[in-house]
Amino acid sequence: MAKDPIRILVTGAAGNSFSLITLISYFLLIGQIGYALVPMIARGVMLGPDQPVILHMLDIEPAMEALNGVKMELIDAAFPLLKGVVATTDAVEACKDVDIAIMVGGFPRKEGMERKDVMSKNVSIYKAQASALEKHAAPNCKVLVVANPANTNALILKEFAPSIPEKNISCLTRLDHNRALGQISERLNVDVSYVKNVIIWGNHSSTQYPDVNHATVITGSGEKSVKELVADDQWLKTEFITTVQQRGAAIIKARKLSSALSAASAACDHIRDWVLGTPKGTWVSMGVYSDGSYGIPSGLIYSFPVTCEKGEWSIVKGLKIDEFSREKMDATANELIEEKSLAHSCVN
Amino acid sequence: MAKDPIRILVTGAAGNSFSLITLISYFLLIGQIGYALVPMIARGVMLGPDQPVILHMLDIEPAMEALNGVKMELIDAAFPLLKGVVATTDAVEACKDVDIAIMVGGFPRKEGMERKDVMSKNVSIYKAQASALEKHAAPNCKVLVVANPANTNALILKEFAPSIPEKNISCLTRLDHNRALGQISERLNVDVSYVKNVIIWGNHSSTQYPDVNHATVITGSGEKSVKELVADDQWLKTEFITTVQQRGAAIIKARKLSSALSAASAACDHIRDWVLGTPKGTWVSMGVYSDGSYGIPSGLIYSFPVTCEKGEWSIVKGLKIDEFSREKMDATANELIEEKSLAHSCVN
Repeated sequence: MAKDPIRILVTGAAGNSFSLITLISYFLLIGQIGYALVPMIARGVMLGPDQPVILHMLDIEPAMEALNGVKMELIDAAFPLLKGVVATTDAVEACKDVDIAIMVGGFPRKEGMERKDVMSKNVSIYKAQASALEKHAAPNCKVLVVANPANTNALILKEFAPSIPEKNISCLTRLDHNRALGQISERLNVDVSYVKNVIIWGNHSSTQYPDVNHATVITGSGEKSVKELVADDQWLKTEFITTVQQRGAAIIKARKLSSALSAASAACDHIRDWVLGTPKGTWVSMGVYSDGSYGIPSGLIYSFPVTCEKGEWSIVKGLKIDEFSREKMDATANELIEEKSLAHSCVN
Repeated sequence: MAKDPIRILVTGAAGNSFSLITLISYFLLIGQIGYALVPMIARGVMLGPDQPVILHMLDIEPAMEALNGVKMELIDAAFPLLKGVVATTDAVEACKDVDIAIMVGGFPRKEGMERKDVMSKNVSIYKAQASALEKHAAPNCKVLVVANPANTNALILKEFAPSIPEKNISCLTRLDHNRALGQISERLNVDVSYVKNVIIWGNHSSTQYPDVNHATVITGSGEKSVKELVADDQWLKTEFITTVQQRGAAIIKARKLSSALSAASAACDHIRDWVLGTPKGTWVSMGVYSDGSYGIPSGLIYSFPVTCEKGEWSIVKGLKIDEFSREKMDATANELIEEKSLAHSCVN
């Protein structure tokens, strides 16, 4: 029997930050991620080839015509799994009964803007959307925040949607996680599907800590440690880390546009693993509420290694943390504490 | 056992026609189609979830940095099926051993340009790429031309690659086909996956003829004729046809950008059905060499209803053509004859 459709909200779905609309005004859209994401969802990339979906797309008023264009294209693609499309500028209509919410819309930092100004814009966006989600989404709605500052936007969302359980709120660090896998795969010249258990700790920002101390490569003769295979601690502690941390900027430099296909793909991976589970023996990175594990203050949304089963994530416990890692993990936690207090100062 | 990877060429893969590069100069790129297409291919949308692929991406020199950015993002997405990426401006390197070639790159018509000038640019592009494909692609390489004028670009490609069999050359009208399915689905308020056997006849241009005389809808009590269900011949003969014919322009009006996600999705559908076969009792539309069927002059690349099996398409024969259809089919054939002679005049 056919499964019931799952309703998925994507905010910022019109996604053409390069259009005239956004060249002349500062708005919600943060690039092409939404536009790259919706066909992946409609094709079953996120939830599997037998799971029908209904897409809810929310954008701001000036993007409404473009959003309708995206809806037209979704109809034109005749996706068999796509059972409906809601395209709206009304947060209440957008959030109605959604099972999954992917928050791509946000206010990007532009040249000359103060960090506090950007935070303030995002606080007001996430405050409004939180309250629509809390009141109108399906009871067990899972939320993924993609828009920067992702960890802190997720925190704000949760604070203004107190009845949504903490375990249902997350932010995207899977893109960083996948970038780390990709860098190791390139360095060792092995298939990326054989590399596993890298970790992104902390903030989805340039203070994040990509950690391969527990990562392995599946080889013909069993799993081998990435550290041993790379055999270049210096590279792992410097170039590897900065490459992953600054990959977003490198993409912008090359494309003159921020990462879209890789971010959309990572969002699919994040939700798929969360809903359908991680493979046995494999963990992934997700920004989730700290429970105090690894000495990270609770009350922060911090990227941890997690495994998922039956729609719930659990932080991987008991990994050995050396001094080098400790420092990096604390530095990115400190940035999150600062961001949190900046966000709170914007609320008041 | 794991399958051997299939090599797929995508031309115009950097896909950012909106970047400064192309705002200030006229080049190969025709928009975001290539950028939307490559992640779909790498995710298994085109050839299935168990078929590894190697992506070959070709673009022009000024797009090389952006193309490298796309390659970086493909690495960053850690696609398990993606076994390699070739990003190059060298047609020979790009075409080397490819099993499938998707020609998205072309020279778009800009305001103030004469049709002949555009044709002339495309003739020179397709002439060069034809010869690289003929010499360096895998022996049974299948070619799909997406770039406009798609039918005639495909014709030129074949003329300059005489050893590639006619049956291996096609152009994209699946987007128009899917648009027709979508319009019927919307009109009848039925799931698009239950609508089948619309036909796009002729040129991938505004003279194309979207025909529902043989289309059906799968219902609880068997297949029913679309004509009978719609029960509005006037709509089918006017608004339906013009909506499909002019859908591309409507998307540009709404998005301020041409169709990308729906075009990329249609390209995946086209290749998937060609390689893996059409479902029993279902045909699709493909631009292919006319064998004289339905009185369409042979030597034209014309969109027909086709079924596919074992990697080969066959034109569906024996459909009854009424007078209304006959006229429309001839009109679009005449346009193709004209385009062909215009193209030939550019060659000389």
